[in-house]
Amino acid sequence: MKVGIVGLGLIGGSVALKLKEVNNNITIYGFDQNNRSLDFSLKNEIIDKKFDPDSLLDFDYLFLAIPVESIKKQLKSILDKISEKTLVIDLGSTKYEICNSIKNHNKRENFLAAHPIAGTEFSGHVAAKKDLFDNKVMILCETENTNSILLSGAIKIFKTLGMSIKTMDSIDHDKHIAYVSHLSHISSFMLGKTVMDKEDNEQTIYDMAGSGFESTVRLAKSSPEMWSSIFIENKKNIIESLEEYILNINNFKKLIESSDQENLNAEMKKINGIKGILKGIN
Amino acid sequence: MKVGIVGLGLIGGSVALKLKEVNNNITIYGFDQNNRSLDFSLKNEIIDKKFDPDSLLDFDYLFLAIPVESIKKQLKSILDKISEKTLVIDLGSTKYEICNSIKNHNKRENFLAAHPIAGTEFSGHVAAKKDLFDNKVMILCETENTNSILLSGAIKIFKTLGMSIKTMDSIDHDKHIAYVSHLSHISSFMLGKTVMDKEDNEQTIYDMAGSGFESTVRLAKSSPEMWSSIFIENKKNIIESLEEYILNINNFKKLIESSDQENLNAEMKKINGIKGILKGIN
Repeated sequence: MKVGIVGLGLIGGSVALKLKEVNNNITIYGFDQNNRSLDFSLKNEIIDKKFDPDSLLDFDYLFLAIPVESIKKQLKSILDKISEKTLVIDLGSTKYEICNSIKNHNKRENFLAAHPIAGTEFSGHVAAKKDLFDNKVMILCETENTNSILLSGAIKIFKTLGMSIKTMDSIDHDKHIAYVSHLSHISSFMLGKTVMDKEDNEQTIYDMAGSGFESTVRLAKSSPEMWSSIFIENKKNIIESLEEYILNINNFKKLIESSDQENLNAEMKKINGIKGILKGIN
Repeated sequence: MKVGIVGLGLIGGSVALKLKEVNNNITIYGFDQNNRSLDFSLKNEIIDKKFDPDSLLDFDYLFLAIPVESIKKQLKSILDKISEKTLVIDLGSTKYEICNSIKNHNKRENFLAAHPIAGTEFSGHVAAKKDLFDNKVMILCETENTNSILLSGAIKIFKTLGMSIKTMDSIDHDKHIAYVSHLSHISSFMLGKTVMDKEDNEQTIYDMAGSGFESTVRLAKSSPEMWSSIFIENKKNIIESLEEYILNINNFKKLIESSDQENLNAEMKKINGIKGILKGIN
């Protein structure tokens, strides 16, 4: 099997590591516009060879693990260049705009929109790890537009990565993911900002911050380039989620202002229901 | 040594467990208005005996590990009843209002305002654990108003709990803690609410939520009674922090609306500085 991976950061590098572990007969070709990532991946045998994205080899699978904005920019020309047998799989965190950008392409069925629900707050080639996808969910969108033989091959691959498969409409995907993932990142970044702006003495944060702050602000360590790209691509849904978030904070603030302990308690008790929901998350 | 503990939840129970581990010659008297917590603590030898808070025994130390609002309500009458040798130590998460409420009490110097920067999102007697305070910070406020002999005894005790000591003005404490702790809790509760309101199908959350959401929403499992009490006691500072938080979110939202990738990147890159700060947290 011949696999190409564009983008050798957390996601691309982790795909490579796991694919090599579970396949004996595989050659992984990697590309990254960052030479340090490329050299690191080659030196550490995460990939077997470099490749030039302008002259695409006849890959079985070509994974795109780059910011969503770059996927959207490059996908059309990549589809123009691939062979008939190649399936291009994007691993970005938004799906509708990407699917829409190539919906009339004559190689549309050589494309699969996928979103692995896996990641850490760390990024870049050093963050890659082969167990990243273990027991995680892979969401596939608009699978009806992908060639069914190529699709079933890809599903088999994802299962060897240790993942379970869910399918979803790309519009639905982007709506839900805005709430369940993208909003968390913004709330965390903004918490980090609010605290850092206020506390010019870092020692105060060291002394007063506990594990609660640490957990809530963890995502504020995430990659700016990856996330600015996602926020802009999924702008409409994210803005809607932010407006609801701000409305909820304002209502909660009013309860505090009026010392309405009864309703504060009732509100938080309802939200405590998240306990049961979190237990269901892998 | 004779120690009384009012409130046998996460904090009170953990104090009892650790004190018993590090002291051979200690009797711990416990009280909780919840009979289940009291019976559990006695049965599991977290405490040695029950006591009646209306007839306070001649404790060396009397810890108050109850919601801050209850501390404020009960502190005066507790001080009225204790013996000259007792030091009452409150372990609440706000400090100014509590200190202020007894500033003219004739037993003021038998009181010490303390805030252990330790906790988990779990609460109640079952959450208590003896290593909760290991390597954590104990913040002491207005120590100049505590009898110096009683104070040095307490500091010795806190060190045996495994804690390091910081002192702080109570007004400063409440200001900083609003940002570094209380705001995290509200941002997390409101994230939980926004997602739960939107996603009536829990399966969608299971499928789409990753470890990032889980981490950011963790504090939304916290005890409503404990936190409504804190939010109301520290209202002024919390509202200020919420206003800054909302302002930051609104500004960030504008950058997304105008697809201003350059400034989104610059903003998040600055906030990434939290990485270094988090490394300094115990």
